[in-house]
Amino acid sequence: MTRQTARWPLPPAMQAALDEARAAAAQGEVPVGAVVVKDGQVVARAHNAPRAMNDPTAHAEMLAIRRAAEVLGDERLAGCDLYVTLEPCPMCAGAIAHARIARVYYGASDPKGGAVEHGCRTFDQPTCLHRPEIYAGIGEAEAGQLLRGFFAERRQKDAT
Amino acid sequence: MTRQTARWPLPPAMQAALDEARAAAAQGEVPVGAVVVKDGQVVARAHNAPRAMNDPTAHAEMLAIRRAAEVLGDERLAGCDLYVTLEPCPMCAGAIAHARIARVYYGASDPKGGAVEHGCRTFDQPTCLHRPEIYAGIGEAEAGQLLRGFFAERRQKDAT
Repeated sequence: MTRQTARWPLPPAMQAALDEARAAAAQGEVPVGAVVVKDGQVVARAHNAPRAMNDPTAHAEMLAIRRAAEVLGDERLAGCDLYVTLEPCPMCAGAIAHARIARVYYGASDPKGGAVEHGCRTFDQPTCLHRPEIYAGIGEAEAGQLLRGFFAERRQKDAT
Repeated sequence: MTRQTARWPLPPAMQAALDEARAAAAQGEVPVGAVVVKDGQVVARAHNAPRAMNDPTAHAEMLAIRRAAEVLGDERLAGCDLYVTLEPCPMCAGAIAHARIARVYYGASDPKGGAVEHGCRTFDQPTCLHRPEIYAGIGEAEAGQLLRGFFAERRQKDAT
C-alpha cells in the first residue's frame, strides 16, 4: 500500500468522487463517492444511496462497480481503477476483488468500518483471490472534512 | 455458530434455496441459491447470476438481500433470516451485517472463499457492527453435491 502524504493536486477522478460525495450529503446520505476509470476515461460514478434506494448494499463503490460492469458488458473490470473518498468496507473490498479492479485510490481512512488497512484487511487474507494496488490518502483532507461536517450536522439535528 | 451434524428434514426455505442453486447451474452459473424469510414467509429468493447480469456483485445472497429490502421498503432487514446453500464470501458477509439479518442458515462450508468460518471470519471481527446467529451445515450434502457436479462438468468441458 502506498500512502500519499504531501498535498499534490487531486486527480480529476478523485475530484469527481468528491463531487459525488457532496451529492450524497445533499440527499442526507453518508457522503462517500466513487468513480471507475478505464484508460483515463470515467466509466461510471456513483454515491452512497442505501436510504434513497432502500438497499443496504448501495454503497458508492458497489454502485460504481455495477454500473461500470454494465457499461463495459463484462463482470470483470480488469484494467479499471476505482477512486473512492473513503476506505472501502468489507463488503466493498470483497466486490473490488471479485471485479478484479487493478488499482484502488482512496481518501480518508476508516478505522471503524474500513477493511483495507483496518479490520479484516481483506486484500491481505491468503484466501483473497485478487489484490489490487492500493493508494491511500488521495483527497483525504477533503473527504474527511465532508464526513465530519455531515456527522456534526446530524448530531446537532438529533440533539434539537 | 451452531453446526447441524444429523440429517434432519431440510427446512422448506433451504429446499427453495437449493432449487435456486439448481436454476443457477442450468444457466451455467456457479450453483448457489439464497432465500430471505420473515415471519415464516419467503420475502425474496435468488441465485448466483454474475455472468448473466454482467455484475460481479450478483451473488445469490446479494440479490436476495436487495430484493427483500425492496419488497419490505427498508434498507435494514431486522428480524429476517437468510438461507443460503454455501458459506457466504467476504462481500456477502459484509452485506449481511449491513442489512442486519438476524439469522443465517447455510449449507456447504467454503474453505477457499468463505468468510464466516474461514478467511477473515467477518462476524468475529471487533469492527463488525452486527453479528447474526449462524447455523451451518443445513443442506450441506445437497449443496456440496450440486457444486461438485457443476465443477466436474466444467472441467470435463474444458478438457474436451
